[in-house]
Amino acid sequence: MEDNGYRKRKKLRQNGVVRPLLTDLYQITMAYAYWKSGKKKDHAVFDLFFRQNPFQGEFTIFAGLEECLKFLENFHYSESDIVYLRETLPSTIESEFFDYLKNLTAKDVTVHAIEEGSVVFPRVPLLRVQGPLIIVQLLETTLLTLINFASLMATNAARYRIAAGKQVSLLEFGLRRAQGPDGGLSASRYAYVGGFDGTSNVLAGKLFNIPVRGTHAHSYITSFTGTHDLHTKMLAHRVTGEEHDMLELCQQWRKELAKHLETLTEEASDGELAALIAFAIAFPDGFMVLVDTYDVKSGSDVKSNGGPTKFHGSRNSEPHMHWPLQRSGLLNFCAVAMALNNLGYKALGIRIDSGDLAYLSNKARETFQLVSEKYDLPWFAKLTIVASNDINEETILSLNEQGHKIDCFGIGTHLVTCQRQPALGCVYKMVEINGQPRIKLSQEVAKVTMPGCKSAYRLFGANGHALIDLLQRSVENPPQVGEKVLCRHPFEESKRAYVIPTRVEELFKVYWENGKICQTLPTLEGIRDRVQTSLKTLRQDHKRNLNPTPYKVAVSDELYNFIHDLWLQNAPIGELF
Amino acid sequence: MEDNGYRKRKKLRQNGVVRPLLTDLYQITMAYAYWKSGKKKDHAVFDLFFRQNPFQGEFTIFAGLEECLKFLENFHYSESDIVYLRETLPSTIESEFFDYLKNLTAKDVTVHAIEEGSVVFPRVPLLRVQGPLIIVQLLETTLLTLINFASLMATNAARYRIAAGKQVSLLEFGLRRAQGPDGGLSASRYAYVGGFDGTSNVLAGKLFNIPVRGTHAHSYITSFTGTHDLHTKMLAHRVTGEEHDMLELCQQWRKELAKHLETLTEEASDGELAALIAFAIAFPDGFMVLVDTYDVKSGSDVKSNGGPTKFHGSRNSEPHMHWPLQRSGLLNFCAVAMALNNLGYKALGIRIDSGDLAYLSNKARETFQLVSEKYDLPWFAKLTIVASNDINEETILSLNEQGHKIDCFGIGTHLVTCQRQPALGCVYKMVEINGQPRIKLSQEVAKVTMPGCKSAYRLFGANGHALIDLLQRSVENPPQVGEKVLCRHPFEESKRAYVIPTRVEELFKVYWENGKICQTLPTLEGIRDRVQTSLKTLRQDHKRNLNPTPYKVAVSDELYNFIHDLWLQNAPIGELF
Repeated sequence: MEDNGYRKRKKLRQNGVVRPLLTDLYQITMAYAYWKSGKKKDHAVFDLFFRQNPFQGEFTIFAGLEECLKFLENFHYSESDIVYLRETLPSTIESEFFDYLKNLTAKDVTVHAIEEGSVVFPRVPLLRVQGPLIIVQLLETTLLTLINFASLMATNAARYRIAAGKQVSLLEFGLRRAQGPDGGLSASRYAYVGGFDGTSNVLAGKLFNIPVRGTHAHSYITSFTGTHDLHTKMLAHRVTGEEHDMLELCQQWRKELAKHLETLTEEASDGELAALIAFAIAFPDGFMVLVDTYDVKSGSDVKSNGGPTKFHGSRNSEPHMHWPLQRSGLLNFCAVAMALNNLGYKALGIRIDSGDLAYLSNKARETFQLVSEKYDLPWFAKLTIVASNDINEETILSLNEQGHKIDCFGIGTHLVTCQRQPALGCVYKMVEINGQPRIKLSQEVAKVTMPGCKSAYRLFGANGHALIDLLQRSVENPPQVGEKVLCRHPFEESKRAYVIPTRVEELFKVYWENGKICQTLPTLEGIRDRVQTSLKTLRQDHKRNLNPTPYKVAVSDELYNFIHDLWLQNAPIGELF
Repeated sequence: MEDNGYRKRKKLRQNGVVRPLLTDLYQITMAYAYWKSGKKKDHAVFDLFFRQNPFQGEFTIFAGLEECLKFLENFHYSESDIVYLRETLPSTIESEFFDYLKNLTAKDVTVHAIEEGSVVFPRVPLLRVQGPLIIVQLLETTLLTLINFASLMATNAARYRIAAGKQVSLLEFGLRRAQGPDGGLSASRYAYVGGFDGTSNVLAGKLFNIPVRGTHAHSYITSFTGTHDLHTKMLAHRVTGEEHDMLELCQQWRKELAKHLETLTEEASDGELAALIAFAIAFPDGFMVLVDTYDVKSGSDVKSNGGPTKFHGSRNSEPHMHWPLQRSGLLNFCAVAMALNNLGYKALGIRIDSGDLAYLSNKARETFQLVSEKYDLPWFAKLTIVASNDINEETILSLNEQGHKIDCFGIGTHLVTCQRQPALGCVYKMVEINGQPRIKLSQEVAKVTMPGCKSAYRLFGANGHALIDLLQRSVENPPQVGEKVLCRHPFEESKRAYVIPTRVEELFKVYWENGKICQTLPTLEGIRDRVQTSLKTLRQDHKRNLNPTPYKVAVSDELYNFIHDLWLQNAPIGELF
């Protein structure tokens, strides 16, 4: 199944968009200037990293590696690409350059990377890309494009997962608000990687083998104006196969239940009942429906109110509020669910898409419990309650605080657009050329780059938690378990500490060498699992939403001195400070 | 050229992503419930509209229509789609339904739409989609996906264009921060539509025939450590063809110019000079380079400071600041530009990617003017100054206020992620089913839908400005030029006004009927022009950044009464208000 999904994905991308021309023009302009000035044999090392965790958090999930590797695998300018470049670049460009481009592949490039799905931190390279300067430079934009959004999405999803806890299901519903078609596909894919359980996006399901979920919209309910719209009323018993009139059965149940639910049958919408019956007949084993279309009985859809935020504070006004769920949707739902039960089917649950989600979910749960006890159907008390409607991380935290009975959140806009921070700022910086380390200085210390070819280690403590990430020069010996390691702040001289690791994880593996992917790539499920196991090694205080503790990234003493020697060598002696 | 671009685009999309499965699963679930309950012949009308202009503005640019029409043209479930759906949907689904899906096309659908590139307003439908309920419902998510981001991007770009004015060039540089590969392509396409002049995204250039622009990155400069890295020094005179030693020439010029620019030659970086010479030799007619890599002379790249915002307020501190431009980049640039001039080439200009952009652009312009006068080269005073570095709409407005000499902005992250509001909230609502109008009521009046099939008109005043948009029932006669038209607020009874239009524009045209696109579609250029002509009809106060005046959308008296009669019919008589 995964192989199949992978082949399809590969086909899509090859025919589709991840091609070497998906880059900034200046990469090609630079390539020509390098080529022309005899720098074809220059060798460079670039680090791809970010400087700040997104969402005011203190961790990031690294994602997009597989797509980068596939891009390298397929890196090749097509005939029509060359034609386009010839037309577009200045006519003074020598024709041999296009021959050079035509034969260019990524075979001389070596890529070290952190495992996809790992929790990662600022300044630790996610990718170290080495090889001929021209090709390594040509890869920049596409690698950034493939990693920036993937990692941002996976991080966002992982944050929602942390906020919601492990018991609650999370579904991604964002396609319609994403950055166009493939923005939506990427969002679905990396939301799943980050810890979501499924998506509404059918194509993402097909391409990436992600579970897809969905029932119906409010318009479905309102397209039924009354029970006369119900052209099919019969449903066969699950076991006996005997046909029953669902309308009759549901109407009986509605009458019966109205008493217990303290509602008048006349307050419930007949159009809604018809819609629910039609849905139950279509999906007798998958009866999961919206219950908030009608406020009270009427032929129209009176949505009771707006987003949940507005009502989050209003749960104390309960005695004076008449919520739609009880009067129409919930009564109709219970009636159809009980009728289905008579015919051997178990309903799945409800979705609430408006109103005070904490209050409404509690109310719905109470109703389910009441019916459960009344008719001795234990499963009825545990029907699934799905909530949607403009939910974000803060909504979930607020609902948790208030207490709710929601089993599943459907999340769209805020998830897929990463509204709180719609871009991760990964950069791609040269750290070495022709064996010479390069340092990029800046008046903003945070923007100073770490020169040279580096290795990265994660040091763990006795309790299994990650203590610190350590960058070293590649020529140094790795830190050893049980031995004292001096960890230094990269820029503040006096900030130093000894750490004795119980476990040391080398963060970089070589993923691309000699024109081949040289690691077995995990499935999407595998990456998704990696996210959770990797997050588990992170102390809770690094992961919390409010004022999380920064996780530390240190440099070895040797790297510290290397950086600062280079810094002094390169920085001018300025005016009096 | 356009035909070619169109064919390529079509191919990409067909092989790529805009397929009927790019939808929410619930659309297919609903389709089955409709199909199963005998609603195959039901006929529905849906409106696609938004409720609020983005970016706290008072206008929106409608974009994405062509992509919607192509989607309709190609709407067809493939064999493998059907296989996937069979595997994914409950096994209880009747096999005939899949046969039904297999043969489904959009041929019975009719789409009316506003012209792509038009300025549009809340509640006026952008699309009116009519046809069999099942297919019309199945189109929802994909149409929203194609219009939401396209319109958001085009609007964002148009706002940047308004902020920057007509004289300044705008380039989109956002690929690396977009929502993945196709998010980036959509961003480039609709930034161009909204009024940008070009993009750095080469694939977008190739696919959509958009001008591409770009020179080099800072890493290009730092990859040259000194003049010894210059393997080729010779450049032929543009006219005579005689070869000259550029290094020698540039070094002479640098010495000469250093006096006039009050800089010491030793303060300029030799690595930078080598990089610029190599670039000039590669692109003698396209010499446009970064000048802010080095703070002062040194072998390293000392970026002088961070983003422009930090320094926006610091222009008064000028006497004490030594800006990199003067000391290294600007001196080196002028030296190479003058050498090029000796060989018959005119340099294009510089890019500044850091620091106080207002101050630096003024400083650079002064320098160019000085050189221009000194050597009697009028064109030198007019060299292009490009500014980039985290620019957004507010940065441009602030730079305008301070006074700057920038000719071109390169804009990335803020443009393509629409940071200030990363999603436009278009919705798709049923307004009629089987000839019966449907109204969606809500306690939030803004969420009440306008029932029934409607026409939309834009009424213009004598000065050519748009006065108001008017929605009518489709059965009404259109408003007439020179005749009094009663325009009513859709929900507030007392808000009414007579308007006598000088011109009336019918906003909807039928774009899709009988399985065919039935309008000649404009080129991307055509849509881009439409944006500007359409915006020109909008009064300035609707377009301004700060506290813009809302443009009014009214309903006819007949539609007003129609809405309110339906409302009263459908709303319950509640408790005391």
